[in-house]
Amino acid sequence: MSPDDNTPAIPGPTFTGVTLDRAEGARHDPDEIAKLLEDPGAVTVAATEEGVVIEDNGRPALARRLVVQGGSAALDRRAPILLGIEDGSPLFAVDLEALDPEARATEIDGASIVSLRDAGAVLPHSEAGLAAYLTALLNWHRRHRFCANCGAPTNVADGGFSRKCPNCGASHFPRTDPVVIMVVEHDGRLLLGRRPGWPQGRYSVLAGFVAPGETLEEAVVREVREESGIDVYDPRYVASQPWPFPSSLMLGFTSFADGGEPKARDGELEDVRWFALDQVRAAARSDDGELRLPPPVSIARFLIDGWLERMG
Amino acid sequence: MSPDDNTPAIPGPTFTGVTLDRAEGARHDPDEIAKLLEDPGAVTVAATEEGVVIEDNGRPALARRLVVQGGSAALDRRAPILLGIEDGSPLFAVDLEALDPEARATEIDGASIVSLRDAGAVLPHSEAGLAAYLTALLNWHRRHRFCANCGAPTNVADGGFSRKCPNCGASHFPRTDPVVIMVVEHDGRLLLGRRPGWPQGRYSVLAGFVAPGETLEEAVVREVREESGIDVYDPRYVASQPWPFPSSLMLGFTSFADGGEPKARDGELEDVRWFALDQVRAAARSDDGELRLPPPVSIARFLIDGWLERMG
Repeated sequence: MSPDDNTPAIPGPTFTGVTLDRAEGARHDPDEIAKLLEDPGAVTVAATEEGVVIEDNGRPALARRLVVQGGSAALDRRAPILLGIEDGSPLFAVDLEALDPEARATEIDGASIVSLRDAGAVLPHSEAGLAAYLTALLNWHRRHRFCANCGAPTNVADGGFSRKCPNCGASHFPRTDPVVIMVVEHDGRLLLGRRPGWPQGRYSVLAGFVAPGETLEEAVVREVREESGIDVYDPRYVASQPWPFPSSLMLGFTSFADGGEPKARDGELEDVRWFALDQVRAAARSDDGELRLPPPVSIARFLIDGWLERMG
Repeated sequence: MSPDDNTPAIPGPTFTGVTLDRAEGARHDPDEIAKLLEDPGAVTVAATEEGVVIEDNGRPALARRLVVQGGSAALDRRAPILLGIEDGSPLFAVDLEALDPEARATEIDGASIVSLRDAGAVLPHSEAGLAAYLTALLNWHRRHRFCANCGAPTNVADGGFSRKCPNCGASHFPRTDPVVIMVVEHDGRLLLGRRPGWPQGRYSVLAGFVAPGETLEEAVVREVREESGIDVYDPRYVASQPWPFPSSLMLGFTSFADGGEPKARDGELEDVRWFALDQVRAAARSDDGELRLPPPVSIARFLIDGWLERMG
């Protein structure tokens, strides 16, 4: 799905396959984190709200800067965000949003900001996974500076894996919002829907957030019913993909329906319908037809490709 | 696993099998919600921080009160929390924490507060699922009264499925924190760990929160390595279970290891070791032995029972 020189431990969609050690042991001890910051091999990787900072020295990668050589001006040494240990070197995350535009430009110097979606298409597999991890963690810190329990400003803790409220004592952890996304199959046809604003001809598999107090399987059945009026059965988990836009975890399923006429019902989709195998197959071969499938970077496409393969 | 007169749509562990319609179509329209409140069949179910309010008129169930007959004094009619439509009747959630102790006692009158864990053991399957849904949603509202983005107090919106910030405009949605929990098997033995403070002899399968930017499968591998030093492969998803203590979604896996000597490493477990099939089988039959398994209400036990069944 993307250029891949590394064999991931577990093969999967784009944005999977992070290989670094998340340093669970060290991150709860401020002294350990301070020691890691002084490590001569410690490096930073950076992002803005628009995307991740990428360099291309023959092979595209996240731009890594040595902390001892200045690292990034935006690295807060009192409350650093530790991503983990990569091949023995501590790896810290830097949010360039903390800088004014001029300082940000100086900081990026020679590299470029690439949206995470585009980064997923050009980076090697495990590097795209790291970009997703970096983005997910910084997104969360950006939008969770205050305590949801009492409203007070919170502080980075645990090397960036939590925020702590100095007022009420509450700890807050990064959000990961589970989303089910599912192939719905009936008699060699695939149920696809279209959201308002999508590129012309684009249809994709249905998806939706898991609600409080339900299982993944219940979410699959409920979402398809809500979005199309179709009843599905036998939901089966296939694969997952972090999707930090801003903090989702996509959980891919297959399922079956006994047919029926789908109807966009809850206002999320502007159209939903069955597509014949031939139509979907043609769309997978060429992006110029009437039906256009989601891009390879998405688990949606991974699921559709998997369905096509299964259908032979 | 629990008394069950209803056949759930999808068989699963306790706290699954909610059968009501979550009313996705109505909950975004305040006029629709107001209309549902006036429905003569509209009922409330209630909970406190300690548990859910249960009645036993021959068959234990959540205590349902007609809204038109006073419903609950704690029902905020300006910002009601709509659980959904149950057999044609609107069902609202009430948090008795809003009342002073005396009013709360009056309100509970004739029913009892039962902890969600205990409720899971006595309620019919789908009713336990509803109790989990009620608890999950109220837990979230209780701990998220303020905007994490700007610190201002937020308001209930979408019939309780979101909170909206009147200051910065941010919308906030209920958290569902994905947790992986896994059978780790090697040569007919099962890897179990023990947390400090657990009842004597209690061991269970390992578990941990999914981190930002990782797949479920990556989380399985990382958690087992962090908690025991054991490397696992071939993680396979089995089942999921809402676990609103306060807001987890348990994602059950099986996996395999090539053996090795487990060692509690990250401070979460006080012991972790391999247990022989015979030991686990004896513990499943009787709770009086040296090894004690987690209670039937948990997906941990569901996974262990599944492993025993597979081992024959």
